[in-house]
Amino acid sequence: MATSVKVYGPPISTAVSRVLACLHEKEVPYQLIPVNMAKGEHKKPEYLKIQPFGQVPAFEDEGFALFESRSICRYICEKYAKQGNKGLYGENPLAKASIDQWLEAESHSFSPPSSVLVFQLAFAPRMKLKQDQGAIRQNEEKLKKVLDVYEETLRESRFLAGDDFTLADLSHLPNTHYLVNSSDMGELFTERDNVGRWWSEISSRESWQKVVEMQKPA
Amino acid sequence: MATSVKVYGPPISTAVSRVLACLHEKEVPYQLIPVNMAKGEHKKPEYLKIQPFGQVPAFEDEGFALFESRSICRYICEKYAKQGNKGLYGENPLAKASIDQWLEAESHSFSPPSSVLVFQLAFAPRMKLKQDQGAIRQNEEKLKKVLDVYEETLRESRFLAGDDFTLADLSHLPNTHYLVNSSDMGELFTERDNVGRWWSEISSRESWQKVVEMQKPA
Repeated sequence: MATSVKVYGPPISTAVSRVLACLHEKEVPYQLIPVNMAKGEHKKPEYLKIQPFGQVPAFEDEGFALFESRSICRYICEKYAKQGNKGLYGENPLAKASIDQWLEAESHSFSPPSSVLVFQLAFAPRMKLKQDQGAIRQNEEKLKKVLDVYEETLRESRFLAGDDFTLADLSHLPNTHYLVNSSDMGELFTERDNVGRWWSEISSRESWQKVVEMQKPA
Repeated sequence: MATSVKVYGPPISTAVSRVLACLHEKEVPYQLIPVNMAKGEHKKPEYLKIQPFGQVPAFEDEGFALFESRSICRYICEKYAKQGNKGLYGENPLAKASIDQWLEAESHSFSPPSSVLVFQLAFAPRMKLKQDQGAIRQNEEKLKKVLDVYEETLRESRFLAGDDFTLADLSHLPNTHYLVNSSDMGELFTERDNVGRWWSEISSRESWQKVVEMQKPA
């Protein structure tokens, strides 16, 4: 299908897969443009024009370029408000503010320790890099404290920002997927009643399952 | 003036001061509610009801509670769209997306190294804590690379997201203020032509100067 939406980067990247899950939820057709990071394509002048920090993903829609996965997701929800999952970023200002709050909690509380663990436990072995046991222990402790807060929140509501699946939940899919499926940290999620129920529900969504398929080696 | 807006936390906190700067830009009256962190008030059950992670700031408006400084700022701009600085979060979807992108860059690229440096260089000495020289060196290098990208961006435009001062610029004020005024890292900003010009312009805004006054010991 002809589309003006382009996503640059490999689906195995957690930040790229966050954007892909959002596009699937919103039923927005897109072109996936490979960026060969092993060959340093993300540091070439052409790519730096749309992503000045040399990271993935980059994104374009009708020639409008954006970077940062969470801001790309917000843009997709606003631009394509009337299609796909219409409540993904809320349908009124207070709902949107609550989603934003949990999206920031994901970004500032959940993502820092979980990203270290994803790198150390899922990526370092594939890249034949030595694991940093101190960093693993320290970030496991940090993540446990964050998940204790989530457990209480998810005792009160079905999803993080209320009764509906939103961008706030979606944004947790990439890191949690690796921790549950490619590390020995899965129990941090599954042993907590409410976090486990929540993970089971959000990870089985068709939108995310399509991304998981794309992450499998060809 | 009677107001329903409450901010919980001390103005010397970088996250609290981000919210205060936004309220001043939007000319929104507020009540500042002290949270005695030395006495652990931010970990008490009453406070955890509005900020489950036990951090500052917390925020309330007409009984609606929010946490995370950047989501509070977005909410203030949306709720009080028609007063104060009307362009602070953009006036159309593309402008908003660009502001969001740089707000995320601040959050993910600028904030991690600059927060470590603020803690190590400005707060650790006041708290009589030993400075971690390795962390200082490592994060100085990271921050330099981020500021190199900013220098190029600010060569092309007066502010990060275009010709106007926005939430994207505002969000950099708290950490940069401490680095320029309470550390020996100020030159990282002032020695770069465009970053220096930008810092001089954004830090002299009346909204921010009011926050700086509030940070001074009584």
